[in-house]
Amino acid sequence: MVTNTKNNHEMKCPVSAMIGLIGGKWKPIILYCLRSETRRFGEIAARIPHISRKVLTEQLKELERDGLISRQQFNEIPPRVEYTMSEVGKSLSPIIQEMEKWGQQYIIDRQ
Amino acid sequence: MVTNTKNNHEMKCPVSAMIGLIGGKWKPIILYCLRSETRRFGEIAARIPHISRKVLTEQLKELERDGLISRQQFNEIPPRVEYTMSEVGKSLSPIIQEMEKWGQQYIIDRQ
Repeated sequence: MVTNTKNNHEMKCPVSAMIGLIGGKWKPIILYCLRSETRRFGEIAARIPHISRKVLTEQLKELERDGLISRQQFNEIPPRVEYTMSEVGKSLSPIIQEMEKWGQQYIIDRQ
Repeated sequence: MVTNTKNNHEMKCPVSAMIGLIGGKWKPIILYCLRSETRRFGEIAARIPHISRKVLTEQLKELERDGLISRQQFNEIPPRVEYTMSEVGKSLSPIIQEMEKWGQQYIIDRQ
């Protein structure tokens, strides 16, 4: 995690810092899922097969803490929670799309 | 590591696959170091402060195994080993540059 990084040297590489925000198995998929629409927790869970609710909750909390998505809770019964990509998150989208194209062309298609 | 990933589901996300190739603390820095020039092991080590020779050797091996750089050994005394970005590695450079710009603007400059 970028915010937990201990020494200044590590902080100086902006590429590693960016990877720190979106790295891991699920975050690119969650961001992709929110790229154009606000979604409820249950909708995100339904669109990402094999993710547990516990892991999804953790990943959403980290993305919110890092400012890439925002969370809005409605005090209804049953409670409704919605997630939306923030402006910072949106600014990341074109790069994630480029990463996706590259990964598809040079890794997935060559397997 | 992408090549060690065990189940097919993980392999389907090209973004995670790409991050698998360049993730970690040192790989973006090593690729940056080789972006425009062939360099000897010692030159790379000298340009990356705080990296141990052991870790640099490991990281270079992984980058070579994943096809992002190539290694050429000259049978001289003392032995000379040179590393060059491959065509695949070069195709990644513009994306890494975009990641760098984003990380600088949204993470480093805001600290």
